[in-house]
Order: sequence, then C-alpha cells, then structure tokens
Amino acid sequence: MTEHPILDAIAFNADGLVPAIAQQHDTGEVLMMAWMNRAAVAETLATGRVCYFSRSRNRLWRKGETSGQVQKLLHLRLDCDGDTLLLLVDQPGVACHTGRRACFYREARGEALVEIAAPLVAPDVLYGHAHDKTGHDKTGQDETGHG
Amino acid sequence: MTEHPILDAIAFNADGLVPAIAQQHDTGEVLMMAWMNRAAVAETLATGRVCYFSRSRNRLWRKGETSGQVQKLLHLRLDCDGDTLLLLVDQPGVACHTGRRACFYREARGEALVEIAAPLVAPDVLYGHAHDKTGHDKTGQDETGHG
Repeated sequence: MTEHPILDAIAFNADGLVPAIAQQHDTGEVLMMAWMNRAAVAETLATGRVCYFSRSRNRLWRKGETSGQVQKLLHLRLDCDGDTLLLLVDQPGVACHTGRRACFYREARGEALVEIAAPLVAPDVLYGHAHDKTGHDKTGQDETGHG
Repeated sequence: MTEHPILDAIAFNADGLVPAIAQQHDTGEVLMMAWMNRAAVAETLATGRVCYFSRSRNRLWRKGETSGQVQKLLHLRLDCDGDTLLLLVDQPGVACHTGRRACFYREARGEALVEIAAPLVAPDVLYGHAHDKTGHDKTGQDETGHG
C-alpha cells in the first residue's frame, strides 16, 4: 500500500509533529487542538478514525480507544505552508477531558478570565470510574491532557 | 496598567510562543493558525486588533499592518491545558497569503491531495505590486508565511 501524498506535503516540526485542529463538521465548533506524527496521520486517513500522538504518553492516542466513542474523520485539510492540519470531524459527546464539549471554555472578558461553558459530564464518568445517568460507561475520553 | 490574568494562564512553549487559531466569528470558518508570544497576546487584547509573532521575521506581526485591512478580535479563548488560543475574529478579504479566504485549501480526497479553493485575489495584488479590479491597494497580507 502506497503512502498518501499528503504525508510528504506536511512540514512536521523538529519533533516530527504537526498541530491538528479538530472542528465539528456541521456546527463549525472548534473542539480541540492536538498533535499528530506521521504514523497518526497515516492511520487516521486509513481508518477514518482520528488518531493523535500524545506528547505526554509518547505514543499514538486513538481518541475514544477505551470507550468506543470515537472521533470520526470526515475531511483532512492542510494549510498553505503545510505546517497545520484541519480535521473536520464528527465528535459525539464531549471533546474535552474536563467534560466540556470543547476545550476552549475560558474567555478573556474585560479584565477577567471567565469560564463560558460548564461540564456536560462529570470527570469521574469521563475516566470510567462511574456510570453516567444514561447508563453508559465512560464517554470517550482517554487522555487527561491533549498530549 | 495591570496585565490581563489570561497572560499568566497561558502555557507558552519553550520558545515563548502559543498557537492561535483564527476563526471567522459568524461563519465559523477556520481561517488560519499562527503563533503569539506574550507581547502579541497583550497587544491584541489591548487594541482589539490581532497581532501575531512572526517566527520567520522574529518580530511582532500586526496582521494588515501595511494595508490597513486588519483582523479584528471579537473574543479570545484559552483551552483546557492553556497551550492553545482560539481567536474569534472578523477578517475582511482573505486570510491566506496565497489570496485564498482561508489557509486550509488542500484536502486529502481518496488517494490524492487536491485544492478545494481558488485564490480570490492575485498574489501581486496581495503584495502591493498592483491594484486589484476594485481599485484597492493591497488586501491586507503582509507576510508570505504565517511565521
């Protein structure tokens, strides 16, 4: 199987990584930003399921790998200078390890930094230590940071 | 004048930089990703006009500085682990130095990498070497890469 031509078009940084922005395809919400290495990009394209590279764990991180609640890839785009990816995804549940839909929940307002979104799921549910109210185990989070 | 509390909440990387995603506030389009240092974030918050840090020029880069066509900041958000910014902006014209509205104009489709958007403005117009058809000088681009 030949490699996808996008792999040679990506300008990975000195650590072999490229930032990847995940955007919910239909609402336009920017959910999170994480990093990918070459293997993560190749796997994501091959499977249609988003795989990042966790910098904290130093390994591939298949979003939802412990829960079955995955981030599905719809489109993968590369920017003009090749050093940033935009992933259009379908993300059920929450994208943030804090239990919020998106990671960007703190906003500068006037002289303050305020939280603009509350968790939708409790952290103990996210980490698989409890059942949520709908009876599901976990909600797809498998990383406490974005690696 | 005291510094905004967000400045101490940002986890700048070893180079003193943080990635900043610019999203058009009303359409949701992800326009570009560039970098900011502490001074760029502070200036952006103080002026309401987006200022990045150009890695290639090693200096502050006020988007639109040579043309008057600026990127206006509406909201500045910080992610859960403090290492990525999301800027909700109003960007007239084009955000990409290639003359396209957004930088993410190449997409993996099947086994190919294809261009999914054409330039709206010719590069010689972008760089101030010509007038476009509407009679405006330049269109706000002042960096050939995103620094």
